[in-house]
Amino acid sequence: MAEQMGSPIAGDIFIEGQNIRAIGEIPEEIAASASEVIDASGMVAMPGLINTHNHSPMSLLRAFSDDLRLMEWLEQKMLPAEANMSEEDIYWGSLLAIAEMIKSGTTCFADMYIHMDQIARAVKDSGIRASLTRGLIFLEDDGGKRLKEGVQLIEKWTGAAEGRITTMIGPHAPYTCPPRPLKQVIELARDMNVPIHIHLAETEEEVDKIRQKYRQTPTEYLYKLGMFDGSLHVLLAHAVHLSEKDISLIKLNKGGVAHNPTSNLKLGCGIAPVKSYVEQGILVGLGTDGAGSATSLDLFKEINAAAGLQKVIHKDPAALDAGTVLRMATVNGAKLLNIHEIAGSLEIGKKADLILVNMNRPHLMPLHNIFSLLAYAVTGADVDTTIVNGRVLMKNRKLLTIDEDLLFKEVLTRARRIVRGV
Amino acid sequence: MAEQMGSPIAGDIFIEGQNIRAIGEIPEEIAASASEVIDASGMVAMPGLINTHNHSPMSLLRAFSDDLRLMEWLEQKMLPAEANMSEEDIYWGSLLAIAEMIKSGTTCFADMYIHMDQIARAVKDSGIRASLTRGLIFLEDDGGKRLKEGVQLIEKWTGAAEGRITTMIGPHAPYTCPPRPLKQVIELARDMNVPIHIHLAETEEEVDKIRQKYRQTPTEYLYKLGMFDGSLHVLLAHAVHLSEKDISLIKLNKGGVAHNPTSNLKLGCGIAPVKSYVEQGILVGLGTDGAGSATSLDLFKEINAAAGLQKVIHKDPAALDAGTVLRMATVNGAKLLNIHEIAGSLEIGKKADLILVNMNRPHLMPLHNIFSLLAYAVTGADVDTTIVNGRVLMKNRKLLTIDEDLLFKEVLTRARRIVRGV
Repeated sequence: MAEQMGSPIAGDIFIEGQNIRAIGEIPEEIAASASEVIDASGMVAMPGLINTHNHSPMSLLRAFSDDLRLMEWLEQKMLPAEANMSEEDIYWGSLLAIAEMIKSGTTCFADMYIHMDQIARAVKDSGIRASLTRGLIFLEDDGGKRLKEGVQLIEKWTGAAEGRITTMIGPHAPYTCPPRPLKQVIELARDMNVPIHIHLAETEEEVDKIRQKYRQTPTEYLYKLGMFDGSLHVLLAHAVHLSEKDISLIKLNKGGVAHNPTSNLKLGCGIAPVKSYVEQGILVGLGTDGAGSATSLDLFKEINAAAGLQKVIHKDPAALDAGTVLRMATVNGAKLLNIHEIAGSLEIGKKADLILVNMNRPHLMPLHNIFSLLAYAVTGADVDTTIVNGRVLMKNRKLLTIDEDLLFKEVLTRARRIVRGV
Repeated sequence: MAEQMGSPIAGDIFIEGQNIRAIGEIPEEIAASASEVIDASGMVAMPGLINTHNHSPMSLLRAFSDDLRLMEWLEQKMLPAEANMSEEDIYWGSLLAIAEMIKSGTTCFADMYIHMDQIARAVKDSGIRASLTRGLIFLEDDGGKRLKEGVQLIEKWTGAAEGRITTMIGPHAPYTCPPRPLKQVIELARDMNVPIHIHLAETEEEVDKIRQKYRQTPTEYLYKLGMFDGSLHVLLAHAVHLSEKDISLIKLNKGGVAHNPTSNLKLGCGIAPVKSYVEQGILVGLGTDGAGSATSLDLFKEINAAAGLQKVIHKDPAALDAGTVLRMATVNGAKLLNIHEIAGSLEIGKKADLILVNMNRPHLMPLHNIFSLLAYAVTGADVDTTIVNGRVLMKNRKLLTIDEDLLFKEVLTRARRIVRGV
């Protein structure tokens, strides 16, 4: 998908080590040196998808508590079940999510959770790329324990796993982070030069809560603490309920918005003003949120949903086009995770993070417009091959770094134990 | 999915000829007589999905004109391309749609188009079940040609293809059918005792147009012509823009609404008031509309979209639950097509129209709630086996009645020719 989503080009891709060395017509002397050749005829090669907001271990709670009101979902189901999760559960839950992501064409994800060493281990073992964040909730004094874990994650894992792991600092949300600790985190982010990953204005309840407490919107609350002064890179997850004034306040932010349409629908939260973000030059990437809410981690579904929702709320089929949503899921995602110099597009010198999509299917015929098909008809199940950092993680839909049988056995046993009595 | 979506049951299904003969524990003397045994371990057997609104040959125009405003889409792209379609094109376009539907778990579809003999032939050849309608537009006098074709379809094809084909009469929409011919069609439907398939209030433009012309809503227009007096079975496609009063007018209708959420989103039409329909006891089935607008004919996507959209517009995750949307796509669809005595649920004595969904996938693990997984995480690609009228049409994802290679060759050549110069 070169050049502003121009015409797709026919040709080959040569990968050397972790990187893309040539695209298009490969000089014979280079081609002859290949140790492995993948036949991609009838397939589209495109940048791997980048999931900019996830809580990967929650895959253990997929389909555990659907069709419930938010507080019931959270307090009676999610929190008690999460309290039953061991560190080893976190590893297997994260690995389950990673298996699903690799199989649906995602090559990198941003995660916010606890016991991050376990998630880092799953990333290391599986070969996927990730931006990891320890979620920080400051509702009770823990003597600085959580913040210390957040810093340890950054110090221990940044650049680990052949450079596949990057990190952020993660104050959870305005309503779980009072001004004092939040200010401390902001200073830390500046000092350590790491991006911030935070939830913002996911629900109307949050907006009401912050307004009652601070007489401002959640966005104003973060703005006044200095988060959007242009010196920081902030990944804002959800950003569903922002006023026009709020939107103007996040314009200087070097990061942008992680849009999670399916989760926002399923929890009844609302539809983010994505068209306004795009028009005002605010960076938008796509995410799934955890499988506990979204059920599925297939980012192709989010691509389709993101476009459809803006079209319908603006009563305009041209409101958000195929190229724009595909960019959100690839190059924008890379910018949002601050890894655009190495990932997000198929370019010589970048890391080889790419997928092959098999178009030889009834639901993808005929081939009038490849970008339309990728945005509106492809699902994760059409991905044949997934490559990250030059390594083939899935080929012909078979995972090469994860033992699926062992994974399913572990997951079924652990999931049953976790929800017992909840 | 027995008993109001209670717990799924473990067991076997015995098919004899076209029908389901036993479910659950199969007596040994019956089981011993089986000529073929399908191992469905790790799979869920459920009723085949019923697509209640399609224009199957438009699959040839999939992804041909996306991201365009409605009139541009219709007048500059769809109509000129459709004008280039031969009868043989219609056959192959319909067969392409049928291949996609069988592969994504749809066992029956309602179609409205032209050259219906070709579509009936594709239904006959492929083994799928269908309810066919000749679309009737009465904007210019054709000496009764179209209506005659509509009647011929009914006389020639009702009950054909081992009983897999049923028919309806199809006045296209209020804005394309003036009162006189519409009244004639209504009388015909009563005389011949056939259901009616009609588009209703898909866009706000239609509502404005009818209001200007007749000083009433499209629904009132049909009501006053006698369409909803309770004597007729009417399939109302879309029904996006109905007022509370309009909704009360369609309550007596023996049919109901075909809800097409993806198409409605993609064309920016709006979100149908499905929760109100359900609360007021109006029958709702799901459809995809043609692939020219929806791009995909995967009804599992519509199940997910239907639930998500009602949840978000009502700000309530409980607004439409998994069981309700799964019923829409199965038993309600059968009622809407007036075939519920033979299809729509897994019951002894009914036709064996069923699918096997392979749950042995990372994105469908763990198994906390089968209905949630089916509604929110399964896609058509998870369907392993599709059976219609007791005949296996797909097994292990291989189509058994359609030659995919030949189909793709025909489709690619024909599609290229159809859009040349458009």
